[in-house]
Amino acid sequence: MNRDKALAIVKEQITEHRYQHTIGVMETAIQLAKLYGVDEKKAETAAIFHDYAKFRSKDEMEQIIRTENMPEDLLVHNAELWHAPVGAYLVEKEVGITDPDILSAIRYHTSGRTDMTLLEKVIYLADYIEPGRHFPGVDEVRETAKVDLDQALVQSLRNTISFLLKKSQMVYPDTIYTYNSLILGGK
Amino acid sequence: MNRDKALAIVKEQITEHRYQHTIGVMETAIQLAKLYGVDEKKAETAAIFHDYAKFRSKDEMEQIIRTENMPEDLLVHNAELWHAPVGAYLVEKEVGITDPDILSAIRYHTSGRTDMTLLEKVIYLADYIEPGRHFPGVDEVRETAKVDLDQALVQSLRNTISFLLKKSQMVYPDTIYTYNSLILGGK
Repeated sequence: MNRDKALAIVKEQITEHRYQHTIGVMETAIQLAKLYGVDEKKAETAAIFHDYAKFRSKDEMEQIIRTENMPEDLLVHNAELWHAPVGAYLVEKEVGITDPDILSAIRYHTSGRTDMTLLEKVIYLADYIEPGRHFPGVDEVRETAKVDLDQALVQSLRNTISFLLKKSQMVYPDTIYTYNSLILGGK
Repeated sequence: MNRDKALAIVKEQITEHRYQHTIGVMETAIQLAKLYGVDEKKAETAAIFHDYAKFRSKDEMEQIIRTENMPEDLLVHNAELWHAPVGAYLVEKEVGITDPDILSAIRYHTSGRTDMTLLEKVIYLADYIEPGRHFPGVDEVRETAKVDLDQALVQSLRNTISFLLKKSQMVYPDTIYTYNSLILGGK
């Protein structure tokens, strides 16, 4: 899909602040795609649509998770996780994007998963390090992302899990599986 | 089983250093059992035998994990985890202890599990805070253990997971499930 058309579709779904974040993710994802030999157009499209469902109501997302047989353990975990799989579903249903690579990059951009594809890694990381992100440790991940995609992911996952532990929040198992598979893969 | 007889059996299986640790776990487990209304005799026995398999060879432990249909994901994780389920098996087979409460406390004393029993919690925590343990954060957990068993477990799990993340080591999923179930239970 044409970039301008894709951006116009997404702009109607999200806040201006989130739209600026989306632009940042798109630009970062294209840079990472170039660097790591990933299809740039797929990275662009997945980035543009990654937060498509971010502002749907919890009720709508919960219903989609149930009726579309998504993992029900999502429902006992933080609702922040829901927009990713629900987004993949809605982007296919409402926008008509059917490329499974793009849809899975949207689906796993928050939780990660075991044995992520390169495109999934690029979108996950672009979402974490786009220029609008400001939190402790993000600059270190930005630097690592220039030289080692997997190590940058390990750093971002470590930061995310540590943050959840400090706040006494639950950790979604897929996030640990993602971390473990990267550690195992790096041995 | 008589305490002296149990200790004599275990003394033959482990080093002097590990035996002293076992005495510490036993004393701590009895204190915690009194405090939280757990059967003191079961706590004593589980504590005495918790590290029964600690010095078995990796080969023997691996074979038992395979032939006894224990979770095979243990084998891709740190071998430090293996002595707990293997210990539960050997304590039943070689020592003749059949009490399922005691055996499960031995089985889960390193990984934890979702919805731990009180006895399992007591043994897990006693192993973590016995007087011979010296590492950052242990004193805080000792203090919490006097007033809130679950919160003490959360602290010890948080420390353990953070330590593994810092060392870029894998985190066994049951350990995350344990942490998550305690967070969920505390809400």
